[in-house]
Amino acid sequence: MTSKARASSLCRSVTSNPGLRLCRKPLPPALRRSYSSIYTPKKKERVVILGSGWAGYGLARTLSKDLYDPIVISPRSYFVFTPLLAGTAVGTLEFRTVLEPVRRAGVGFYHGWADDVDFERKVVRVEANANDDMVGRTVIPPPPPPTKGPAQASEAAAPRSRPKAETFDVPYDKLVVAVGAYSQTFGIQGVREHAHFLRDVGDARRIRLRVLSLFEQCSYPSRSESESRESGDASKATLLTDADKRALLHFAIVGGGPTGIEYAAELHDLIYEDLRKLYPDLMQFVRITVYDVAPKVLPMFDQALADYAMKVFNRNGIAVKTQHHLERIRPADGYLGSDQGGLKIKIKEYGDEEVSAGLVVWSTGLMQNPLVKKLEAKAVPGSEATPETIHHLLRDKRTGGIMVDPYLRARTTTSTEPASGEDDKGTSVLPDVYVIGDCAVVQGDGMLPKTAQVASQQAAHLARRLNKGEADGKPFRFRNWGTLTYLGGWKAIHQSEADKLRGWLAWVLWRGAYLTRSMSWRNKFLVPVYWFVTWVFGRGISKF
Amino acid sequence: MTSKARASSLCRSVTSNPGLRLCRKPLPPALRRSYSSIYTPKKKERVVILGSGWAGYGLARTLSKDLYDPIVISPRSYFVFTPLLAGTAVGTLEFRTVLEPVRRAGVGFYHGWADDVDFERKVVRVEANANDDMVGRTVIPPPPPPTKGPAQASEAAAPRSRPKAETFDVPYDKLVVAVGAYSQTFGIQGVREHAHFLRDVGDARRIRLRVLSLFEQCSYPSRSESESRESGDASKATLLTDADKRALLHFAIVGGGPTGIEYAAELHDLIYEDLRKLYPDLMQFVRITVYDVAPKVLPMFDQALADYAMKVFNRNGIAVKTQHHLERIRPADGYLGSDQGGLKIKIKEYGDEEVSAGLVVWSTGLMQNPLVKKLEAKAVPGSEATPETIHHLLRDKRTGGIMVDPYLRARTTTSTEPASGEDDKGTSVLPDVYVIGDCAVVQGDGMLPKTAQVASQQAAHLARRLNKGEADGKPFRFRNWGTLTYLGGWKAIHQSEADKLRGWLAWVLWRGAYLTRSMSWRNKFLVPVYWFVTWVFGRGISKF
Repeated sequence: MTSKARASSLCRSVTSNPGLRLCRKPLPPALRRSYSSIYTPKKKERVVILGSGWAGYGLARTLSKDLYDPIVISPRSYFVFTPLLAGTAVGTLEFRTVLEPVRRAGVGFYHGWADDVDFERKVVRVEANANDDMVGRTVIPPPPPPTKGPAQASEAAAPRSRPKAETFDVPYDKLVVAVGAYSQTFGIQGVREHAHFLRDVGDARRIRLRVLSLFEQCSYPSRSESESRESGDASKATLLTDADKRALLHFAIVGGGPTGIEYAAELHDLIYEDLRKLYPDLMQFVRITVYDVAPKVLPMFDQALADYAMKVFNRNGIAVKTQHHLERIRPADGYLGSDQGGLKIKIKEYGDEEVSAGLVVWSTGLMQNPLVKKLEAKAVPGSEATPETIHHLLRDKRTGGIMVDPYLRARTTTSTEPASGEDDKGTSVLPDVYVIGDCAVVQGDGMLPKTAQVASQQAAHLARRLNKGEADGKPFRFRNWGTLTYLGGWKAIHQSEADKLRGWLAWVLWRGAYLTRSMSWRNKFLVPVYWFVTWVFGRGISKF
Repeated sequence: MTSKARASSLCRSVTSNPGLRLCRKPLPPALRRSYSSIYTPKKKERVVILGSGWAGYGLARTLSKDLYDPIVISPRSYFVFTPLLAGTAVGTLEFRTVLEPVRRAGVGFYHGWADDVDFERKVVRVEANANDDMVGRTVIPPPPPPTKGPAQASEAAAPRSRPKAETFDVPYDKLVVAVGAYSQTFGIQGVREHAHFLRDVGDARRIRLRVLSLFEQCSYPSRSESESRESGDASKATLLTDADKRALLHFAIVGGGPTGIEYAAELHDLIYEDLRKLYPDLMQFVRITVYDVAPKVLPMFDQALADYAMKVFNRNGIAVKTQHHLERIRPADGYLGSDQGGLKIKIKEYGDEEVSAGLVVWSTGLMQNPLVKKLEAKAVPGSEATPETIHHLLRDKRTGGIMVDPYLRARTTTSTEPASGEDDKGTSVLPDVYVIGDCAVVQGDGMLPKTAQVASQQAAHLARRLNKGEADGKPFRFRNWGTLTYLGGWKAIHQSEADKLRGWLAWVLWRGAYLTRSMSWRNKFLVPVYWFVTWVFGRGISKF
């Protein structure tokens, strides 16, 4: 890839008359072979992959293009390298260094939402999304209206509330559902509207701009507490008091999993390594708090490592409030209200006393994608033996995911009531339909966490199997490679079956380990460049 | 700067217990000295600089912080290195590599619009802008309503149409007006709403996303021309025909100055070096056209170089249409209308036949900032000899700019009618008010072009003078360093008084020359890194 691209560059520069004449010529045969397959369907089976996350993109890049004609359908045209997303949200990395365009994987692509699947006709209905102006932002589906007919309810559960765009049909030979999951808001009031998520690169950009805006806002000329806000001087009425600044510079992170903890750590680094030089007088107002409902954060780590993490956070002045239940987020009243971005958080343990914050980052729990629910509600073709029985996809009772057999094929059932786990061995699989990633529940492999690791292992397994023409009989089995979490200040914790690490070595491991998987050479080169630039010059603080 | 930042990084990593405890300690004295001056006004004179472009930022970074307390007021918190902006619009460079945050220049900063100046009380009224969600986008002021009183008219000429935010007052000892100019739309219908400008980094991002969206949109499954759009099949009615694709993939650039020519060249490189590998079937539909009203493009170059440029463009298949007068831009009707982004351009020479395009980039002409008009309409304090006479800023009749003396001090006049040029030598200057950049017209230096070169030379001259306590008697005089324009395909043209260059050598010069001025070491390092990455891996095509 590298040398080829470079060679073509060189060729371009050396040729005396390159220009368009050359460009308008047909592609050289070597290039034609690799790209034309996308556009002129041949004998190859078309594999339509719904989603471009760890599962979907992982499969798309490893599936053999000689055997198959893969087409990815996704509302975002790139894969997000999520472990480094928090780094982009604080300006350590540039946004595009954690993105891999789907098209560069050499596959076909339709930029749109998979809206529905007709399993009988083997066709996916796609809603066009090429003109998306919410580019890269997580949008949580609105809650379904109280009580309505099933048709309306499923409509209301569509992934966003904007009007439907045009749709078109894409036929498939094999279908891979890898649409992932949404953030879970638990129906808590105000979360959808006022909290920030950190799952896509547009979220990271919004969070970054918000933090920088808050510091700019608080550095406007200030007003002493004693001056009354009702003094009638219109100019003075808009200036912030110290109490206002304390409210706005409170950064609240809800959820003590790795994402929440890493963002808190990165935010701390940004503020105390970079912003304090530019806003020294505002440092006294800054607070970072992590809230979690559980009795401890980072539940996937053992006690010693979690304790170490808490010690680091404690020393850094990041407050961690466990067993705190968030009940509502609302804009602050009047003065610090929506325009100024002040928020009020109601926490059960504090009674009626609300906590003020300028930013709430929400990173707790996942819910099923509405498409999964829609597919589970549909009738699917039954086995050839009993063509008249109505079949459904087998739904996991606990998580709502689609159950798959050890070869990641979607399982079906004839019972209308969804069954869970091992008690329905008699059900069959739906031919040519596979489910991987967050929306899949694998038979007999316990309850796997919804992580990038699981999703990418499933993608690798399915690609291997399909590349062998499904002749390989090895069932999918998850292998835990260990977990890493960055804690700020060049420290991290790492835990796997073989070892437990903490401190500086874990940090080096953290920086190294993430570079190897699912990343193009371009980004493998650029990410260390940015780490170096951050080390030498500080983080990027341009507000853009 | 470099070694200091790096040393502090090292220090952070080596200290065994860095964390917050250390951070919360007061800054070391060396750092305090350089930053505290921003916040605690001392005996130093406060220089308030309106604007953060070539003039304002150039002055801010070179003005002595030992002698003065500079505060920049600008609606954008960064300086844009404009010569490389077109490169970011096509993904060669990352957006933030052409930005320099104003605060990193070691000056005070208020993120807002200068709304008005009270020259008597020496106070600037600032409209807060920290929560700007149009971040970095050029917004053209709406045309003033037909006939209204002068007060209302000046209100309507405010820089944007959104409701006014809070305001606050910032006092000054010296004031430097460097607010630049706006894009001139000549009142042509639809330009404000439908054309893209290329003056700020948000514009570059929008243009980039638009180009990528158009290619995605045209790569949806297509429909043959013969199928009727009224066939009643809702799904098929949304698919594009070849004619639609030809309409959407026409990229129109209005204005044949260096900005328009360079964007056309960079767009050509993007499409024929990168996008053709991903969308080979769409190449047949692509067209790039540059329109200009003048009989030739690149008027600042001599005939031989301009001819060479046209030869390069011609070979690259970029059409250049001189003596074409654009009269209107409107969204295409119905089907390809606003959602799909199709546009119709009316050109005088073509009569009623409109030209279709998917993108119109507008880069022709400048108009005065509405603030300049507002300031010129105000009464200003007169000289001490005649305190009762009403004075105004001296307005240049031809351009509407503020006239300055050879020391860049704002000139005043007692006549109500604005006078132009040399015929009013008797007027005095307004003490402590300077005007530089696009909104200044220098006495006795002919009509200087509104370029980055002029603005940064004026900034350097004023900084030098102020740093010497205004003792230096050398008047400002513009020195032409020459002009460079990139033509695509590793070629450029360069012209100065001493030499004329074209082709590959000019390209090397082009890449080198721009690195030296007004750029931080961070970006001096990152820009070549991105050029290298583009050379090896191609341009960034992630749609974000």
